[in-house]
Amino acid sequence: MPLTRIHNFSISLDGFATGEPQSAEAPFGHAGQRLHQWMMATRYWAADGTTGVDDAFAERHTPGIGAEIMGANKFGPPGWHDDPDWKGWWGPNPPFHTPTFVLTHHARPPLEMEGGTTFHFLEATPAEALATAREAAGDQDVRIGGGPTVVRDFLAAGLVDHMHLVQVPIVLGRGVRLWDGLEAVEQAFDVEAVSSPSAVTHLTFTRKAP
Amino acid sequence: MPLTRIHNFSISLDGFATGEPQSAEAPFGHAGQRLHQWMMATRYWAADGTTGVDDAFAERHTPGIGAEIMGANKFGPPGWHDDPDWKGWWGPNPPFHTPTFVLTHHARPPLEMEGGTTFHFLEATPAEALATAREAAGDQDVRIGGGPTVVRDFLAAGLVDHMHLVQVPIVLGRGVRLWDGLEAVEQAFDVEAVSSPSAVTHLTFTRKAP
Repeated sequence: MPLTRIHNFSISLDGFATGEPQSAEAPFGHAGQRLHQWMMATRYWAADGTTGVDDAFAERHTPGIGAEIMGANKFGPPGWHDDPDWKGWWGPNPPFHTPTFVLTHHARPPLEMEGGTTFHFLEATPAEALATAREAAGDQDVRIGGGPTVVRDFLAAGLVDHMHLVQVPIVLGRGVRLWDGLEAVEQAFDVEAVSSPSAVTHLTFTRKAP
Repeated sequence: MPLTRIHNFSISLDGFATGEPQSAEAPFGHAGQRLHQWMMATRYWAADGTTGVDDAFAERHTPGIGAEIMGANKFGPPGWHDDPDWKGWWGPNPPFHTPTFVLTHHARPPLEMEGGTTFHFLEATPAEALATAREAAGDQDVRIGGGPTVVRDFLAAGLVDHMHLVQVPIVLGRGVRLWDGLEAVEQAFDVEAVSSPSAVTHLTFTRKAP
């Protein structure tokens, strides 16, 4: 049975997955790159990167994934849907290489990019979006790509099988929180924590057998 | 130079150091004992407890401490100051064994208990309270005993030299948050994280040399 997975989702000590305000110049607001430096230091990201526990987790992002679901706020800065030429942050060859479903109230025709990524724009509940993405993924898994609002919605709906969070030892103070409304969500999962010499802590949530 | 230290201060993944509502029957509200089970499983707490990393951190609570500062919400349940006979949660021989300063807007005479604990009731700013506690502690350190509001106030005032937090992999959803108003507080500290086989993660904050 294919799984629904979350990978490399980074949060601050106070639970923010992005800072504010988000803009074309600062996709993560005042957080800048601080939530993702741990990943950019790995070989997964850069050929001369580290190969320890951070890399071991980071590289699980891609294999076995047949589709991604992302939120509108991941696809572009506020207001992107008013720009008919906006094609995402990632240039002509985005790093998804699968059908990629963008949850938005402003649907538009699919956008076929180089390298196997096609963006589909969808107004749907988490369960509906997952059914659509599963069909596109075939026998492979579906990744929930974020941002925090989308991750939270899928967790609240009980649709996540595996979640890898990375807790970065910074206090952002403001932004978008992951945990709001998720009281006791851990009870559905086996949770494991492992700290890295880079100072981040990897948290893995594996759904308990029913 | 004596230090100001915080030990064994447990928080949930979403940053709550206590649940709600707090009462005489449930000092930590709906959190129950879940934030402190890691500690109750150690030899520091129970003679037959574990002796690994959780115990190594836990037992640093006491040595070298000459005074404690705590908030009114640690000393008793809501309304304790209306009860002239309330002497704290801990019975005739409280586990502090030093002068212990309770920050409250309802001052009362000092309360001398067995075993070396004397409760002093104080209306003061963090800096004033620390000066008073330092004097009482002599050449030993002062511990900030919590709850979250007091820890937050001392962090915000830049008065903490060493902080040991324990992150417990539960999502409480509500209660009193540690991190509010502390944006970028980590920049004054070297931060280290180590996960335990018990599933908690120990975070140590050591103030950087000036």
